Amino acid sequence: MPSCEILTIGSELLNGSVLNTNAQYLARQVTALHIDVVHQSSCLDRESEIIGALDQAFQRSRLIIVTGGLGSTPDDVTRQAVARYFGCGLTYHRDQYRHIVKHFQSSGCGAPPITRCEAYFPTVAKPLLNRAGIALGFYVLRSGRLLVVLPGVPRELVNIFERCVRRLIEKEVTDRPAWYWLTAKIIGLNEPQVMRQLGRKFFKRGEFEFGIYPEIGEVTIRIKSKQKRLNAGLGRELKERFGPRLFSFEEAPIASVIGRALRRRKLTLAVAESCTGGLFAKRLTDGAGASRYFKGGAVAYSDQIKREALGVSTALLARHGAVSREAARAMAQGVRTRYEASLGMSITGIAGPSGGSRRKPVGLVYISLADQNRTRTFECRFLGDRSKVRLQAAARAFEILWRWLAH
Amino acid sequence: MPSCEILTIGSELLNGSVLNTNAQYLARQVTALHIDVVHQSSCLDRESEIIGALDQAFQRSRLIIVTGGLGSTPDDVTRQAVARYFGCGLTYHRDQYRHIVKHFQSSGCGAPPITRCEAYFPTVAKPLLNRAGIALGFYVLRSGRLLVVLPGVPRELVNIFERCVRRLIEKEVTDRPAWYWLTAKIIGLNEPQVMRQLGRKFFKRGEFEFGIYPEIGEVTIRIKSKQKRLNAGLGRELKERFGPRLFSFEEAPIASVIGRALRRRKLTLAVAESCTGGLFAKRLTDGAGASRYFKGGAVAYSDQIKREALGVSTALLARHGAVSREAARAMAQGVRTRYEASLGMSITGIAGPSGGSRRKPVGLVYISLADQNRTRTFECRFLGDRSKVRLQAAARAFEILWRWLAH
Repeated sequence: MPSCEILTIGSELLNGSVLNTNAQYLARQVTALHIDVVHQSSCLDRESEIIGALDQAFQRSRLIIVTGGLGSTPDDVTRQAVARYFGCGLTYHRDQYRHIVKHFQSSGCGAPPITRCEAYFPTVAKPLLNRAGIALGFYVLRSGRLLVVLPGVPRELVNIFERCVRRLIEKEVTDRPAWYWLTAKIIGLNEPQVMRQLGRKFFKRGEFEFGIYPEIGEVTIRIKSKQKRLNAGLGRELKERFGPRLFSFEEAPIASVIGRALRRRKLTLAVAESCTGGLFAKRLTDGAGASRYFKGGAVAYSDQIKREALGVSTALLARHGAVSREAARAMAQGVRTRYEASLGMSITGIAGPSGGSRRKPVGLVYISLADQNRTRTFECRFLGDRSKVRLQAAARAFEILWRWLAH
Repeated sequence: MPSCEILTIGSELLNGSVLNTNAQYLARQVTALHIDVVHQSSCLDRESEIIGALDQAFQRSRLIIVTGGLGSTPDDVTRQAVARYFGCGLTYHRDQYRHIVKHFQSSGCGAPPITRCEAYFPTVAKPLLNRAGIALGFYVLRSGRLLVVLPGVPRELVNIFERCVRRLIEKEVTDRPAWYWLTAKIIGLNEPQVMRQLGRKFFKRGEFEFGIYPEIGEVTIRIKSKQKRLNAGLGRELKERFGPRLFSFEEAPIASVIGRALRRRKLTLAVAESCTGGLFAKRLTDGAGASRYFKGGAVAYSDQIKREALGVSTALLARHGAVSREAARAMAQGVRTRYEASLGMSITGIAGPSGGSRRKPVGLVYISLADQNRTRTFECRFLGDRSKVRLQAAARAFEILWRWLAH
């Protein structure tokens, strides 16, 4: 199987100011093309470092993807480093420079002369036009190896990759074996629980690579094998073992799987959130088409909104408090009837760091789901900081909703 | 200045299933201790690869931090690789194993025998107890270099780093020079606009390293120099050039800066969101203490909620549509008066990918801010996909709110 390495350049990656999402994006794309990413590294914008890294990469990999350091400030040296590595000069690309000039015109000013350097590429290379930004990308084919150099701005990198690089790799990096992937997403169990439920027997069914990736409230299993039939069998087995907890065999987020189920059953949803402050609604509307089943709801951060927007009674709030089984129940029922939805959901709790007490500690969250017949309320106790409590509460709400839909 | 490199181990990083947030976390911590991170790399769980990477790292860096591959599945080989690199065996740590047993008891089952290996460390190393998970960390001091090996689970890594590793680095990695950092966060300008406003003169004031990091709707400038006074002067100059657009000299997000300003002025806020679907409220409540100024609001995804929760008239919606200057205005005023807030904000638009028309294309968003005297409404046209339109709309709403507060 051909191998790939990814070299991301820039001090902002090394000092941690910027999260390296480019490396992940590229790794996913390359892996999907049946190429093994065997190395990933980041180095400073220094010619000697870049040349050293290129040298190593050319010794061990068929495909090398470099990003960053193609801008026009003095610290950007990737272009020159690649030219020096191949012992060549730089060539000017008129079309890209025209695009640079146009780019600046559209924001109402002339192109600074310094940006002209972004239209150059090493003479041994072939250019990769950048239509989403100004820095030209390029690639080099040498002794059966493909080197691709892209700008570090994520949007531009993705644009060039989608437009040209994927096809280029498909054409130039051959002998990519056929791997079959099986993805399974499981909600409401953590990693040890999933492993226990799988048991040892599961792993005795043949040759495959198994990966398990826990996130808050969900676990993703990814299996890679050379036999389509083996994957199909494993998929059936997973379904048997996990039942409705296995909510998808795709990379789809739970919100979109739930959205599809709501649409199929012609149900609508309204939500009332307190401690999650909009996070649950935000995730429900991340995907397109949510308006077909999601009516909206209330971010009921204050008691006043719980009363006025949701009809929770003052007496109830005074007696039980806003973080209580009773309040959660009234909020779910209130949002359901006020907004004429088939289902009403509520989340109320104490996300912290302050606001907790002995009886009601930080992490205590009530989640309620009201349908036309009854209202179910769940008491949860989450550990972790504010952000983690909020994420767990939203994840749990998705789990409750999914189990209702899948029952 | 002492240098550091970070080696993160695991196929989930190389195939892109998992975003490498550990590398960023460690880079930030180490940089804050005045140590230069000069290299970051990821490799597969293979002994030979890990040993090769360690060998390189020991040649060039004073501090080496390794994460991942300390679990108990057969693919975890970091512990053995380090032992082999130093030519030593493994030592059992009774306390960590007791903790492992307890850890499993708390989730209601015995510790699987396989997990025992997670309580071992290379004999030349010293253990770093893991209280947030089960795999023991460890460190090695050799020829003036410090090697720290930590589990790859982010929560556990952070826990051990905070509890022991920072102090260990402070003690063992000496000659850390004093660097002074200046951070400035600017809202409502993009990178080229900020650079133009800075001009060449700005960069002639002395020796400093300059970094500029654009995000959606904001730009962060980070300056590093050896003189506290130089930074102070640069800070004043930035303030003069950018005025209230420079909203913070800290790493604080705009939402928390706005929160502080609202509290100081004893103002409250309620929001009505359509296309952002809760994202704006979510960001407003990311930080603790939001309940002191944020009343909540409505996620008015359907027209029904716009009418019922916000009092937007049916006639207005029929005449102008839900995505209109008039609807935005009515939503902001409605949410302000219904929830008795000092300020009401609304966002309504077309996030796409569908739902656009020639007159009202995808990316058209109206944002409105109502105070007790008047209502200002802004028409925005954003480019990009659904997620980007939503992020830009929320960022623009923060900008509008901040400019109102800073005027």
